[in-house]
Amino acid sequence: MTLFSRTGIVPVDATHSPAAAWQPLTHSRVTITGGLWAERQAINRAVSLRHGYRMLEQSGNFHDLRLAAGQAQGEFRGPLFMDSDMYKWLEAVGWELGSGPDAELQGMADEAIRLIAAAQTPEGYLNSYYQVVEPERRWANLEMGHELYCAGHLIQAAVAFARAVEDTRLLDVARRFADYIDATFRQAGRPGAPGHPEIEMALVELYRLTGTERYLQLARYFVDQRGHGLFGHGWPFNPTYFQDRVPVRETQVVEGHAVRQLYLTSGVTDLYLETGEQALWEVLARQWADMTTRKLYLTGGVGARYEGEAFGDVYELPNDRAYTETCAAIASILWNWRLLLAGRSAAYADLIERTLYNGFLSGVSLDGTGYFYINPLLSRGGITRPQWHGCACCPPNAMRLLASLGHYLATRSANGLQVHQYAPARIETALEQGGRVTLRMETDYPWDGAVQITVEEADGSPWTLALRVPGWCEGASLRVDGEAALSPQSEEGYLIVERAWQRGDVVRLDLPMAPRLTEAHPYVDATRGSVAIEYGPLVYCLEDADQAAGVSALDVEIDPRAPLRAVRRDDLLGGIVAVEAAGYATDTGPLAERLYAPYGTTAGLARRAVQLVAVPYALWANRGGGAMRVWIPAAQRR
Amino acid sequence: MTLFSRTGIVPVDATHSPAAAWQPLTHSRVTITGGLWAERQAINRAVSLRHGYRMLEQSGNFHDLRLAAGQAQGEFRGPLFMDSDMYKWLEAVGWELGSGPDAELQGMADEAIRLIAAAQTPEGYLNSYYQVVEPERRWANLEMGHELYCAGHLIQAAVAFARAVEDTRLLDVARRFADYIDATFRQAGRPGAPGHPEIEMALVELYRLTGTERYLQLARYFVDQRGHGLFGHGWPFNPTYFQDRVPVRETQVVEGHAVRQLYLTSGVTDLYLETGEQALWEVLARQWADMTTRKLYLTGGVGARYEGEAFGDVYELPNDRAYTETCAAIASILWNWRLLLAGRSAAYADLIERTLYNGFLSGVSLDGTGYFYINPLLSRGGITRPQWHGCACCPPNAMRLLASLGHYLATRSANGLQVHQYAPARIETALEQGGRVTLRMETDYPWDGAVQITVEEADGSPWTLALRVPGWCEGASLRVDGEAALSPQSEEGYLIVERAWQRGDVVRLDLPMAPRLTEAHPYVDATRGSVAIEYGPLVYCLEDADQAAGVSALDVEIDPRAPLRAVRRDDLLGGIVAVEAAGYATDTGPLAERLYAPYGTTAGLARRAVQLVAVPYALWANRGGGAMRVWIPAAQRR
Repeated sequence: MTLFSRTGIVPVDATHSPAAAWQPLTHSRVTITGGLWAERQAINRAVSLRHGYRMLEQSGNFHDLRLAAGQAQGEFRGPLFMDSDMYKWLEAVGWELGSGPDAELQGMADEAIRLIAAAQTPEGYLNSYYQVVEPERRWANLEMGHELYCAGHLIQAAVAFARAVEDTRLLDVARRFADYIDATFRQAGRPGAPGHPEIEMALVELYRLTGTERYLQLARYFVDQRGHGLFGHGWPFNPTYFQDRVPVRETQVVEGHAVRQLYLTSGVTDLYLETGEQALWEVLARQWADMTTRKLYLTGGVGARYEGEAFGDVYELPNDRAYTETCAAIASILWNWRLLLAGRSAAYADLIERTLYNGFLSGVSLDGTGYFYINPLLSRGGITRPQWHGCACCPPNAMRLLASLGHYLATRSANGLQVHQYAPARIETALEQGGRVTLRMETDYPWDGAVQITVEEADGSPWTLALRVPGWCEGASLRVDGEAALSPQSEEGYLIVERAWQRGDVVRLDLPMAPRLTEAHPYVDATRGSVAIEYGPLVYCLEDADQAAGVSALDVEIDPRAPLRAVRRDDLLGGIVAVEAAGYATDTGPLAERLYAPYGTTAGLARRAVQLVAVPYALWANRGGGAMRVWIPAAQRR
Repeated sequence: MTLFSRTGIVPVDATHSPAAAWQPLTHSRVTITGGLWAERQAINRAVSLRHGYRMLEQSGNFHDLRLAAGQAQGEFRGPLFMDSDMYKWLEAVGWELGSGPDAELQGMADEAIRLIAAAQTPEGYLNSYYQVVEPERRWANLEMGHELYCAGHLIQAAVAFARAVEDTRLLDVARRFADYIDATFRQAGRPGAPGHPEIEMALVELYRLTGTERYLQLARYFVDQRGHGLFGHGWPFNPTYFQDRVPVRETQVVEGHAVRQLYLTSGVTDLYLETGEQALWEVLARQWADMTTRKLYLTGGVGARYEGEAFGDVYELPNDRAYTETCAAIASILWNWRLLLAGRSAAYADLIERTLYNGFLSGVSLDGTGYFYINPLLSRGGITRPQWHGCACCPPNAMRLLASLGHYLATRSANGLQVHQYAPARIETALEQGGRVTLRMETDYPWDGAVQITVEEADGSPWTLALRVPGWCEGASLRVDGEAALSPQSEEGYLIVERAWQRGDVVRLDLPMAPRLTEAHPYVDATRGSVAIEYGPLVYCLEDADQAAGVSALDVEIDPRAPLRAVRRDDLLGGIVAVEAAGYATDTGPLAERLYAPYGTTAGLARRAVQLVAVPYALWANRGGGAMRVWIPAAQRR
């Protein structure tokens, strides 16, 4: 069994403890210095955050808060969770300001923060919709009101500003609101939980930041309340949609609204990390196994169904109607990050990688101003990224993830550093048993699997460096200072080197990359007889734009027995590695008016040999709305 | 091009006129005397109609009308369209009483009719929900209120009782209501149309029955109103859902809620039949082409999507999440029947046949007390027919179609008789240029393709007999009185014999039947690499129950190069022809935890040769909730 299968196993040891959890490099400095992600971050900072500001102004998010603050007149605009988009955008700005000052962004943030503070009521409540439109209905509709959801995003934005730039203005607002919520629910013993989970992980983080225990207790209170008949008694959504069908600790699967589900599992994992409650870990392990072995797209996307934006049944993974919301991909990354800390297995980092490079990145256009809400794996044409959405949860969510991407590269333990994602980067941190450490990582990843890590700062004490070997990779090798590593140990998918590290030490990791063909479980209807092209962490697709003249991606088959070729293409999509494959184009014209035909009809159609050109799925729909497919029918021998 | 493709072409001559339309045998007598449909009708009469009565009593439909009539106290029960279920059931009872008296059914009908009459308001309005729950909101919510929808079903029940047993009590109620609606909308120039079409075809039929022109005008009024911004401005449904996106005459496709769409096209076809308006016929032709070439399941089922119970995009035809509501299959039959009258092509009768024998019949259990709302083409297990539904539109709809099935067998023209569906039956009618005619049809259809038609009554004048050659059939032959027919003409899919028919003349039609394999258009993801078994008009499926010990239908492949064998199996499902095929069972155990794997993994799994046994799809889920599949992966040569 190759490592490839890692997303399909359950490496969770049900008896472990979070005492040994890996730690995020929270008080450290991780800077992505080049390559694909640095480019995406630069666009995010230079273009997307400003685009977001304009959209929040145009769509009414600022207006609604001005109404709440008594600074404007008029009608409330947009859906009732408008504030959350503002907070997510603000969180992204916070992280970006931490990466370096920017007067314009700072001015935008100041305007937003002042407005938010002004809108807060004297007792600490804050929600522009309920303050403006239905003041008498505060907390009356926990199911769909999104007040606690918005509060969670406020807290996360506040944490970002506090952590990134030590600006605590928003934190003061958030704490007052959190205190008010705690008094209203937990301390008053009032039943309730967020109809849309989010605040759970925010509260745990607020606890981590402030040390105030009641925030952790409130998170737990909300988790404990679920599954006791709170939600889903009216049309159109049922308790499953709200993860309220059974109590959290009795859950067997991932189900219902995908973002709600994975924000909840993220919060539950946070709770486990802080409490060590074994029952929670067992639930999470079951849910992760269910998701990764039966409900996961190859792109890392999750949530197959349009109706209810929900997880489907087992093996229900349509390509054309894949819902795979960008926010669900982000939620999966957030969850797997927490699982990685707790579970210390490359399986989780593998899934973060798969999701980042594919199902998440597809959500954002190359120019930073277009955003998919839905990320299908097959387009028959006509699909492009809108600038914004009526329900605009995804764009600012993508912005905050891109802005905070450095958080996900590495972790530390008492005596070691673990590198999970590869990108040109500088990592500065301190180890309990290793003192200050600075690493410089150089690589052309994801286009090439060579990774060089240079120790720029170390005090000579021994510590372990763990480098993830991606599940897709076979034949990884490691050399330290030019020599083959003295049989590096492999542990849970990491190559481990223990050493008294010195300034100037160089580690070279080779992760052989070659294009490969992947197939799905035969129970998946939509992928039967088809293969997908992958290369390194990237899932590829065929777009009309790259095929031979007059050939639609819809009409081709790939010869799965012919070799694939990786080709550097600086002319395409800002510079990529494309994959060329041998295949055929079939003239399906005779079938235009014929949905069903005797067996053998299609095989009898004229076909001609063509070269297929595949590009990374994440970059599709950046050149108009031509057809696109990830899964390519495998040509049969004729 | 074989006739097989007939559902995939558009035989509509855009310049024809309804003056030559075939006529239903409305004032005739068609009795199905044996075989599959007679059995289904007998169960429908003996079991289902009484089951329906009990369910209508238990679910509150009688109760709600009693509330409206002031004969009971309490709360309204069920959804606001409860009356429509009562009317559909009553329509079924009406047709059945026309087939022969039954004291118990007559008593049930009398109770319902008296109650309905008592509930009607003095001005003619009738809707238990709005009378009891929201009397001040009459006609205020045309979008979702279903008042006109319920009125349509009332009219159809009334027509059934008037036609079948010359009982006009309900017709008096229906006419008063229709007059009140006409005065409220058309005569008052009040904008509006039914949010759920249905009343259009009912009004045209009421016009046909009574000759009262204003009913036809009202139907036209409602059709004309659509597409001008009436519906779909609020969450969760958009104008497309309601067929209100564009005016009817500008429509290019079938879209939105499938039952709404096809009830509307049925009404529009009725309107065309009465008015001859060419623009309507052109719209219908476009919509029919769109449906049959891009949005139709092999079973005749339509409406791929759960969300909005709607037509999907082109080629969006998932098997597991096929919605294919039983009511949508019925709606398609209703529409194609009207198209058949107007278009006089076997293409429409072919689709009626396909839908009747497969996507419709699957909706009803063999014992007559279980009903599918949703008819998937793949079950991974656990799906069985409930006794009734919270939204119980399908069960009584199936009852009324089964009770009126004789209507769909044949039509007449001035100088001829057309037989569209084959079943043991007796057809008594009169031809303008042929006098009284009685035919006796004998056949073991759908298990065998031999059909014998004996002329039992004829006056010796010449007329033409047209017999449909189903699109699936090749090599049909016709003999009259033991001799090969004198080169019978073939016209629009019918074999035509013109003759001075005499009592005792015998026509023998041979429709060779052999099991066959069918494939779908390669643009359909869910069927790629798979084939379906068909035999005559029947689509087959694999159920766990019939496979070798320990073999799941989910784990098999068929050898598409091996011969298929039709086998009479009197021991199965009340007596059927099963189809045996050679195939393989694969041990997918090693993939249980592995959703994706390198290309070739599945082909490397152990497999063993097995005999596959397929049964008619319509009869699935009558032996528990085992797995079922229509589309079977075709084994590749290893």
